[in-house]
Amino acid sequence: MDNKPRTPVTVIGLGRMGQALADAFLKAGHPTTVWNRTTSKADLLVAEGARLAPTVSDALKAGSLAIICVTDYQAVHELFGASDVELDGTMLINLTSGSSAQAREAARWAEQRGAHYLDGAIMAIPPTIGTAEAVILHSGPQADFEAHKSTLDALGTLTYLGADHGLASLYDVAGLAMMWSVLNAWLQGTALLRTAGVDAATYAPFAQQIAAGVAEWLPGYAEQIDSGSFPAEVSALETDARAMAHLIEESEAVGVNAELPKLIKAMADRSIAAGHGGEQYPVLIDEFGKPRDD
Amino acid sequence: MDNKPRTPVTVIGLGRMGQALADAFLKAGHPTTVWNRTTSKADLLVAEGARLAPTVSDALKAGSLAIICVTDYQAVHELFGASDVELDGTMLINLTSGSSAQAREAARWAEQRGAHYLDGAIMAIPPTIGTAEAVILHSGPQADFEAHKSTLDALGTLTYLGADHGLASLYDVAGLAMMWSVLNAWLQGTALLRTAGVDAATYAPFAQQIAAGVAEWLPGYAEQIDSGSFPAEVSALETDARAMAHLIEESEAVGVNAELPKLIKAMADRSIAAGHGGEQYPVLIDEFGKPRDD
Ligand SMILES: NC(=O)c1ccc[n+]([C@@H]2O[C@H](COP(=O)([O-])OP(=O)(O)OC[C@H]3O[C@@H](n4cnc5c(N)ncnc54)[C@H](OP(=O)(O)O)[C@@H]3O)[C@@H](O)[C@H]2O)c1
Ligand SMILES: NC(=O)c1ccc[n+]([C@@H]2O[C@H](COP(=O)([O-])OP(=O)(O)OC[C@H]3O[C@@H](n4cnc5c(N)ncnc54)[C@H](OP(=O)(O)O)[C@@H]3O)[C@@H](O)[C@H]2O)c1
Repeated sequence: MDNKPRTPVTVIGLGRMGQALADAFLKAGHPTTVWNRTTSKADLLVAEGARLAPTVSDALKAGSLAIICVTDYQAVHELFGASDVELDGTMLINLTSGSSAQAREAARWAEQRGAHYLDGAIMAIPPTIGTAEAVILHSGPQADFEAHKSTLDALGTLTYLGADHGLASLYDVAGLAMMWSVLNAWLQGTALLRTAGVDAATYAPFAQQIAAGVAEWLPGYAEQIDSGSFPAEVSALETDARAMAHLIEESEAVGVNAELPKLIKAMADRSIAAGHGGEQYPVLIDEFGKPRDD
Repeated sequence: MDNKPRTPVTVIGLGRMGQALADAFLKAGHPTTVWNRTTSKADLLVAEGARLAPTVSDALKAGSLAIICVTDYQAVHELFGASDVELDGTMLINLTSGSSAQAREAARWAEQRGAHYLDGAIMAIPPTIGTAEAVILHSGPQADFEAHKSTLDALGTLTYLGADHGLASLYDVAGLAMMWSVLNAWLQGTALLRTAGVDAATYAPFAQQIAAGVAEWLPGYAEQIDSGSFPAEVSALETDARAMAHLIEESEAVGVNAELPKLIKAMADRSIAAGHGGEQYPVLIDEFGKPRDD
């Protein structure tokens, strides 16, 4: 750390995540003011040099930016809504998890009160905050992001997604869907292989290689979606569906769960029934893009 | 290609895949004998130098090994079962798709008739056969695999999985489950982001990075499964379940399909109900390892 004076910052909400955020700012040398409903959660941070503000308004005045990280948007509204908190001219960065609609609504509310507002989503666990491993997504006005990026850098690896305040939470849940899907597919495979006495450690590198390999196809497949044309260059959906039937049969035959295999096939079958059997896998975007309609 | 004389080989079944296999052997300089129920499918290969055998028995006698690649095991049984085909001393490598049970049964049947038998699964499409991109899985006696590996190398990248003849088809469907799961999670995310006007090409690199990143966790998570102990070092399942609820709510709110998100949460909820809410994600192996019991 060089000796440059650091921007003063505020952290509101000192749960497991808020404490980690405040701690990362302190370690990076930022004068850090904190506030939490339950004041005792500030004790460790105060011992490290943080200042505990008596009120939310006082906390907001202390920093050039204020991170908000509480349970949910309900808590955000309780923090700001009922009180006489002065927001004019403040820079709020809300890292509380919520929906894209909640983020857009909070942005509108804050901006009407003269605040600058960025929404964010933390794709990380508290112990990694302050390291490059912690990915933090941001959306909202780009100028606000650029103005505060060098301060926010203390928290992890920052990604700016666009002006629409809803983007951070959309990318967040989309990324989580990928995470759980890779884990579930790996568990399905591990369960299948264990029936033949293969241990999880033996199977894992194979699953890892397939997942990483398939991930490389995504940019190419995305072109099919954006062009709306799905020629079966690699394989036709109806060929895939036959292999999906094998996956179901095998799962049932060896006595493991078949719900994931059945969902995979059900989505494909509906697309085939809609006339897309001769097209390629990404044509399924039509099914994923609408609620199930039966 | 050097000038060493190549091992003579046989390919039985000349559908799209069988033709690609025979073609790769011919290009690698192997004297290649082929047989197909519908003889006209051999025309192109014969023009390239293949010999069309009049019967399956004749075809088997011509090669040091015989690849079988037909529609399914039913077709394999029709090929060999009803006829007086002499199998004693032959080396059969069955690349027909099927279940682990079918592979084990075919192995028993062939070995009782004095044949050597390897089972295989082709994780590739016909145009890639003969290139390193074509991954071909093998299982059965290791000595048989080692004895013929240098010949089989003409077909693609070979992987030997173990003595149990069922392994190739188990790894095959497990790998396919991973492939479809990565694609489906990407489609779910793409559908979510499109509601905010983000195109598929913009979202794809993000999905790619998450998939590849999560894949790297698998060997570590596998240790939890093999040890049967699932301490929540990164996150507890009940914390994950709250984020799963966000994914469902967001999908429903923006009007995209929520079946995949709901399945993800249903599996986690069952594990939590079974008392594992404080443990880490791989504890779900208990749910994946058994049929749904309600
Ligand atoms: N922990 C993680 O691994 C993780 C990862 C990514 C994202 N996140 C997100 O980060 C946010 C915080 O998570 P966390 O793990 O820090 O949660 P936590 O440990 O449960 O802490 C919740 C915080 O919210 C405050 N709060 C709740 N209701 C409030 C209200 N009505 N008024 C004022 N304050 C209120 C709590 O104050 P009291 O102390 O007074 O109760 C506490 O500071 C959540 O949106 C979570 O989804 C967490
Ligand atoms: N194509 C792919 O992308 C791909 C990828 C991986 C794995 N595979 C697997 O490779 C195998 C062959 O696939 P393919 O694409 O080549 O299929 P295909 O083009 O439909 O050809 C099927 C082959 O099986 C033969 N056959 C079917 N029933 C028979 C019977 N009762 N007796 C004798 N021969 C019979 C057919 O003979 P006739 O010509 O006389 O009909 C033909 O040679 C399948 O198990 C498939 O799952 C294919």
